[in-house]
Amino acid sequence: MKLIERYSLVPIYHQVKEFIRSKIESGEWLPGYKIPSEEQLARDFGISRMTVRRSLMELTGEGILYRQQGKGTFVAGPKIIQHLAIITSFTQDMLARGMKPSSRVLEKGFLNAPKGLADKLKTAIGEPVIFIDRVRLADSKPMAIETAYVVYRLCPTLIDDDLEGNSLNALIESKYGQKFAYAIQTLEAALASGRDAQLLTIAEGDPVLRMERIYHSMDGTPIMFVVSTYRADKYKFTVTLEGMPPR
Amino acid sequence: MKLIERYSLVPIYHQVKEFIRSKIESGEWLPGYKIPSEEQLARDFGISRMTVRRSLMELTGEGILYRQQGKGTFVAGPKIIQHLAIITSFTQDMLARGMKPSSRVLEKGFLNAPKGLADKLKTAIGEPVIFIDRVRLADSKPMAIETAYVVYRLCPTLIDDDLEGNSLNALIESKYGQKFAYAIQTLEAALASGRDAQLLTIAEGDPVLRMERIYHSMDGTPIMFVVSTYRADKYKFTVTLEGMPPR
Repeated sequence: MKLIERYSLVPIYHQVKEFIRSKIESGEWLPGYKIPSEEQLARDFGISRMTVRRSLMELTGEGILYRQQGKGTFVAGPKIIQHLAIITSFTQDMLARGMKPSSRVLEKGFLNAPKGLADKLKTAIGEPVIFIDRVRLADSKPMAIETAYVVYRLCPTLIDDDLEGNSLNALIESKYGQKFAYAIQTLEAALASGRDAQLLTIAEGDPVLRMERIYHSMDGTPIMFVVSTYRADKYKFTVTLEGMPPR
Repeated sequence: MKLIERYSLVPIYHQVKEFIRSKIESGEWLPGYKIPSEEQLARDFGISRMTVRRSLMELTGEGILYRQQGKGTFVAGPKIIQHLAIITSFTQDMLARGMKPSSRVLEKGFLNAPKGLADKLKTAIGEPVIFIDRVRLADSKPMAIETAYVVYRLCPTLIDDDLEGNSLNALIESKYGQKFAYAIQTLEAALASGRDAQLLTIAEGDPVLRMERIYHSMDGTPIMFVVSTYRADKYKFTVTLEGMPPR
């Protein structure tokens, strides 16, 4: 191989990253392909292993490559992109990608809203809330863990509905007539707990995306609060920002 | 203490989480407060340590508590919230919060755009691009690492400008007359590499948020592509989603 320009203004690790990216973008290295070892790349390029390691670590951090303990480094598959503009449900997101969505209910029940939850749902403290803890699957593979808190008075028999075969959003909108006018969503990064890891079939300490969403009706009444934990190797989010108006 | 209802429909670990949340929300436990140990909480509530551990792990995962190896578990400070609606720069974000923004340039130079970058910036392959690698600080504390790729032809002398004392966005808009009409942003979760950790003064493997933003002019020409790595313990993102139009 050549491609590394030792006296370029472009740092060598940048050049190695771009070399690997180009192999992936051209389709020569497909998802799941095992890339050459650090030693091999260092030898081929005539550079240090430290430099190769930095390139591979950054590409791993960017989700372009992934490592398997004792096995090597592989090309990652493309992530599912969730567009942050219009409310879409997990069910809709997966159907739009030609995947079969399903759910497994882990736990469901009633809560008397403690202060934090009452603030989010704008209910009285102690008002009954339904909670539903589910694993969300796409083509039978776990993608996210989701806990939904729904104001009981708005959907009084929801807990008895089929929550595995149906979209929760669709149920609330169609059966209970609660239309979602807008939702406020936050996104954070976190590490998978032991429970997250077990349910998502990843390793404890792997990165996850934590999403919170409060669904509101047209008059601003909160209907549902949802906390989700997504596999970070499978998901990314995208949004279009507007420029500031001219000054 | 009391508060745990053993025969409630609400799982005990949920009740412990809500107990801790209420202490924080009432202001009794302030950011930095060392909470009682697992043993202590288990004894006080008369429940198992496993249950307490699950509650603390989930609250840690949610960024409400943090652990310090060998020292204990503490109440986390509130995160900086970035609203995903209008383009704001790091400089504006920090000023709006009464913090002093600054930057440290790690590296800057020229690249001949490889395919991936040329696709993002809609330039020819090999067209010159300026890259600027900076650490972004708030009140002298590192918050993010940011690499900006700017089309050289649009801002030919940018590399010689003061990139530590100025907002890069403001420079590009005011000095070079390139107005940002919109930006497309993606967000992912990842783990801090050794380099990320060193620059952000966190531990390798801590969670980080990886953000990519392509800034466009009114006619859709890309001006700049920015990759940022944010400390996940300091940052969260929020967005308002619109409901589907009535069917």
